[in-house]
Amino acid sequence: MILDNMWYLIIPVAVCLLGLVVAKILASFVMRQDKGNENMTEVHGYIRSGSMMFMFEEARVMLAALVIIAAVLWAIWDWQIAISFTIGTFCSGLAGFIGMNMATNANVRTAQAASGGFSKALKVAFSGGAVMGISVGSIALLGLCFVIWIFRSQFIADNLGIESIRVPLISDMLGGREINFIKGALIISAYSMGASLVALFDRVGGGIYTKAADMAADMVGKVEESIPEDDARNPATIADNVGDNVGDVGGLGADLLESFVGAIISVIVITLYIYVGRSNPDITSGILSKLGLGDLSAANFAGALYLPILLVAGGIIASLAGILFVTLSKSENAHATLMNGTRLSALLTAGFAYFVVSKLSPFNLVPFWSVLIGLGSGILIGFTSEYFTSYQFKPVKKLAETCQGGAGVTVAAGLGLGMKSSFFPVLIITAATIFSYQLGGLVAITYTALGMLSFVVMTVSVDTYGPIADNAGGISQMANLPAKVREVTDELDSIGNTTAAIGKGFAIGSAAFASLGLIAAYLWSAIGSAQEINLPNIQLLSPEVGAYVIAGLLLGAMVPYVFSSLLIESVSETADKMIIEVRRQFKENPGILKGEVIPDYNKCIAISSSHSLKKMVFPALIAVITPLLIGMLLGRVALAGFLFGSLLSALLLALLCANTGGALDNAKKYIETGKFGGKGSKAHAASVAGDTFGDPLKDTVGPSLDILIKLMSVVSLLFASLFPIAPIFMK
Amino acid sequence: MILDNMWYLIIPVAVCLLGLVVAKILASFVMRQDKGNENMTEVHGYIRSGSMMFMFEEARVMLAALVIIAAVLWAIWDWQIAISFTIGTFCSGLAGFIGMNMATNANVRTAQAASGGFSKALKVAFSGGAVMGISVGSIALLGLCFVIWIFRSQFIADNLGIESIRVPLISDMLGGREINFIKGALIISAYSMGASLVALFDRVGGGIYTKAADMAADMVGKVEESIPEDDARNPATIADNVGDNVGDVGGLGADLLESFVGAIISVIVITLYIYVGRSNPDITSGILSKLGLGDLSAANFAGALYLPILLVAGGIIASLAGILFVTLSKSENAHATLMNGTRLSALLTAGFAYFVVSKLSPFNLVPFWSVLIGLGSGILIGFTSEYFTSYQFKPVKKLAETCQGGAGVTVAAGLGLGMKSSFFPVLIITAATIFSYQLGGLVAITYTALGMLSFVVMTVSVDTYGPIADNAGGISQMANLPAKVREVTDELDSIGNTTAAIGKGFAIGSAAFASLGLIAAYLWSAIGSAQEINLPNIQLLSPEVGAYVIAGLLLGAMVPYVFSSLLIESVSETADKMIIEVRRQFKENPGILKGEVIPDYNKCIAISSSHSLKKMVFPALIAVITPLLIGMLLGRVALAGFLFGSLLSALLLALLCANTGGALDNAKKYIETGKFGGKGSKAHAASVAGDTFGDPLKDTVGPSLDILIKLMSVVSLLFASLFPIAPIFMK
Repeated sequence: MILDNMWYLIIPVAVCLLGLVVAKILASFVMRQDKGNENMTEVHGYIRSGSMMFMFEEARVMLAALVIIAAVLWAIWDWQIAISFTIGTFCSGLAGFIGMNMATNANVRTAQAASGGFSKALKVAFSGGAVMGISVGSIALLGLCFVIWIFRSQFIADNLGIESIRVPLISDMLGGREINFIKGALIISAYSMGASLVALFDRVGGGIYTKAADMAADMVGKVEESIPEDDARNPATIADNVGDNVGDVGGLGADLLESFVGAIISVIVITLYIYVGRSNPDITSGILSKLGLGDLSAANFAGALYLPILLVAGGIIASLAGILFVTLSKSENAHATLMNGTRLSALLTAGFAYFVVSKLSPFNLVPFWSVLIGLGSGILIGFTSEYFTSYQFKPVKKLAETCQGGAGVTVAAGLGLGMKSSFFPVLIITAATIFSYQLGGLVAITYTALGMLSFVVMTVSVDTYGPIADNAGGISQMANLPAKVREVTDELDSIGNTTAAIGKGFAIGSAAFASLGLIAAYLWSAIGSAQEINLPNIQLLSPEVGAYVIAGLLLGAMVPYVFSSLLIESVSETADKMIIEVRRQFKENPGILKGEVIPDYNKCIAISSSHSLKKMVFPALIAVITPLLIGMLLGRVALAGFLFGSLLSALLLALLCANTGGALDNAKKYIETGKFGGKGSKAHAASVAGDTFGDPLKDTVGPSLDILIKLMSVVSLLFASLFPIAPIFMK
Repeated sequence: MILDNMWYLIIPVAVCLLGLVVAKILASFVMRQDKGNENMTEVHGYIRSGSMMFMFEEARVMLAALVIIAAVLWAIWDWQIAISFTIGTFCSGLAGFIGMNMATNANVRTAQAASGGFSKALKVAFSGGAVMGISVGSIALLGLCFVIWIFRSQFIADNLGIESIRVPLISDMLGGREINFIKGALIISAYSMGASLVALFDRVGGGIYTKAADMAADMVGKVEESIPEDDARNPATIADNVGDNVGDVGGLGADLLESFVGAIISVIVITLYIYVGRSNPDITSGILSKLGLGDLSAANFAGALYLPILLVAGGIIASLAGILFVTLSKSENAHATLMNGTRLSALLTAGFAYFVVSKLSPFNLVPFWSVLIGLGSGILIGFTSEYFTSYQFKPVKKLAETCQGGAGVTVAAGLGLGMKSSFFPVLIITAATIFSYQLGGLVAITYTALGMLSFVVMTVSVDTYGPIADNAGGISQMANLPAKVREVTDELDSIGNTTAAIGKGFAIGSAAFASLGLIAAYLWSAIGSAQEINLPNIQLLSPEVGAYVIAGLLLGAMVPYVFSSLLIESVSETADKMIIEVRRQFKENPGILKGEVIPDYNKCIAISSSHSLKKMVFPALIAVITPLLIGMLLGRVALAGFLFGSLLSALLLALLCANTGGALDNAKKYIETGKFGGKGSKAHAASVAGDTFGDPLKDTVGPSLDILIKLMSVVSLLFASLFPIAPIFMK
């Protein structure tokens, strides 16, 4: 059964619309819940207005950058590329907005529901998260289908081929050469680049915001003045809670959205190149035969091209089923419910994938097996993250013990743990790469990436539930709700932490794979098209270009380090500013600490906001400009090395950051359960220092690195054909 | 002027012998100095016997490992390979022994000389360092000349060619294929591997020893009991001073010795391959013409082959001149004297290189220019290290300011600084790679590595002077010498710190380049010989082997992280054990703290000794076994990726470790000059925690990473021909 061309778009669009209907129902359910007493509504009002204010400010800053980039794209390419880019930014922004809007409404309602019992609170918080999850998946896919539909002539077999243009300035630089490209590939790359750029802004801006506020609130509140976490007397506490929304909800959603888009478009780009090069015997006898096709006829083409879209549409339905399972579950064991829901989604995704590949695609089962490898390895990587960061297991217990030796050794041990934690994930990614490559070459690698991201809706839902529960806890503390309410929200939060650790590992693994897919697509379009759609070979040490690959590898490996250092600096500078402000308020107005005067929350919000917006621009520029610089100065081959080098560094640093931070955080929590002297002990003081060190690593640096490599890859993919093959200065 | 064959060995041997005579004269000068009063002799006796004990124990542990490896080499290859390997281990061990023996005699004499004034003390300390420096260079080169002389038939033009053997088991695994190699290349690779392996043992063992003792001495002595650094009442203080000798003197010497050997042999190996493949038009028209030769005749061969040996012989003479300059200088400005001596050596090295290349080699000036690029970039990298780690400059000043915010932010800022510090070194290495490649391809890259290491004698002399001065300070404190003596040794030490920072940057840069040279040699022997001495191309993403290159890159990038985490763990576990022992002694014998009873120094020495010896074996195994595993399971192409991946990670982590550690150390020292509240302030406490974190990074992890990549590269080089090209399981 091969569908008619149009149905390949109608089915996924229908799935997305169904998803949005479910999201609307869940949202109405959440909004129908009680917002609680006046105190709660007041605190909630502060958090919500702070979050919205940041969102709009951020949008304003981004808008300036996006308009410039869109204009540049128009100037270099044409309006079609600029439009797709803009749609990408819009979709990413919209999904983030819906999610944040929901999260900031669900938090107070979860807090109120918590007074009615655990199961009710879980339902409200998870429904809020699911609205975000569904929005991410559905809007990303809808946007992509929309772009393909507008420019549908570029995706029809008969029209496909390599186009050539003369871009005046650039063609002259290339010695008068014309620039070759496949238009459809550029269009969807631009869409992906738009989504990635917004994601980087969100992650970096949100990450700086949330950690600076968190550090300032802890440092002055908890350490200097000994008032509890989330105490309403702390001027930075609202900023801290706003940060959870803009960083953990907005940032995470945008991050996974762009991984999702990147994974889909890398498959499509490669498929386009294969089709255009289908008469090349290397392709017909190599790749196509591995995929079970003698050749790729025009009749088969649509089935091949739209396969990734149908696969992720299946993932969305599977996730909706998982969400339904969790919201309808009557079980009191929330952890088991969330896990079972996730498992159900994964299984159904695999089932749909089998159906789609075997019934609706022209291929053999290779894409299905690749998706399965991706699904499996994503879940495995998540579990290894849990092992290294949860205090249920040996590593964190041992780390907590080390805390007795003081801050220096604690941090060293935390770093050591993070370094070691890279072992299994890298092994899993390597094995997945080799297996899928054995199955079906480069193409299979891109399907593996897709597999990891196919049930992204469920992943984001579970991940977003965590910060909502966390925020609910904050509100119940600030509004002085009874201790038993706080107990419920604490338990919700602690379950959220476990699922978040798994989610973080998953995000890193999928980022690595999505980049690998994008790099593969880059190689094809940069090197393949130069060799007239031959298979892309990059020679690591050939007499002509070898040293440039090495140069690229070296420079690429360095960029994530410098990028990370900028983020660490930004967080600590912003935190410094806010610490000064909090101390000033306490000093100038002693009534605040006595609880008689309401502190000036907005001052703190404004500091976090304005600084994080300022500081997010330069890192984003690095991500956009470095690949362009490398490509123009050292050429396409060096850029391939650059992308690999940065993938390696970013992957290992991201694992280090996520797991060092996670482990130090949980070592502190473990000590707070009364181990090694509990709160107030020397070990606890050391663990607090460890957490201060680890927090920006895990919540700002690590997640931003995920996006950095994807954005650099997609920028390279879009601009590849503008670069010379080898350096312009080469003889 | 082209020399007769024999003179190519006679000249360098004569230079080495001259060097050893100079070393003997300097050693006699040092030994003639006064050892000071009874207290000093006693303390000195403890340090010396502790150092010697560790050295012999270490040699015993190594011996077991070395005998096994030599036997394996004999079994796989033949006795010639095993013998060269053994000579390599012996030379490295001998140079380390001479250096340590000298350093542990020079320390007490420097302390005594310090009471006679600054200039005298500098002379004694530097002479001690120079003995080590000259030993490293001369013995390494003598050993290499000796190996070449014993097996001279393998280095004569007429005998050269590819040999084939059938190694029973391995050839069967390769599907009955025979194994191809050039015997001479294997012989010198085995020599280099021997030197590298001893270096890794020295660095890892010494690094764990020194930092564990240092941490324990500081933690219990300075922090808990508030007694000053190097106080004789501290049971760990002798172990701490022993550590300076085994780690900083022994470890550093062995490290640079193996970089030096690696740089020389990678040029020779490539020259052998070029000669054997000289009839290949790619080589004659490509490489040889870039080097100014139409073809490489038998008459020219010796001139090409021995060029690297003559170049480094020139570097040794240049260094002797620099040493003479420093020891004869009458200036009171020690920093300027050391710098001028180093500059003189660098200039003379360049001069000799010009003479040797233009007069004694068959090549054009390309090798000379490459050597110059190497020299220049080595020095530049050193300066960037100084900028990021000295408190003369902004980064460390800013870091010290951050210390006011507590331990967590201090460490985070230190890590951020280390990450950022990779920018310039990577840029310099990249530029050097590109420039030398443009000049003369792969061959020029190996000459650039050689250039960086050519005046290693001077580098080691200056670097070893530091720990001798440091030790002298320790002795004068423990022996209660007058404050003004301590002032002199402190100033000597502080100058030593600056030169050491430059030296560390230099060591990392040269390690990166030496590995690049070794990897180039590996590519030639692994891929080149498989393609019958064609130029080595590694295809990053070809349909046959591409995914294996990626797999190799991923796994390679991960190994340095896991390796580092093992070292961090070992240091902290050993320190823990010693902390318990020191606390026990203070508690069980209160007379110790009152200064009435001499503590049991030997217990602490024994703990550091036995633990560091135990812990050094596994990391060394990783370095030897992982490349073998990758080669056997995934093949030669994947191994090439693996080496590049580990080079990238190790280079960036080594820069991070060295500069994070150096900056945190100096931020503490800056605060101790009275800034931000000085000693006893909150900022100082945070900076002490920062130093505890940074110390094992800079003195254990960073330097060991340098050796890890070189050792893995040379192991790969030696075993390359035993591996299948692509994975054995590949269809």
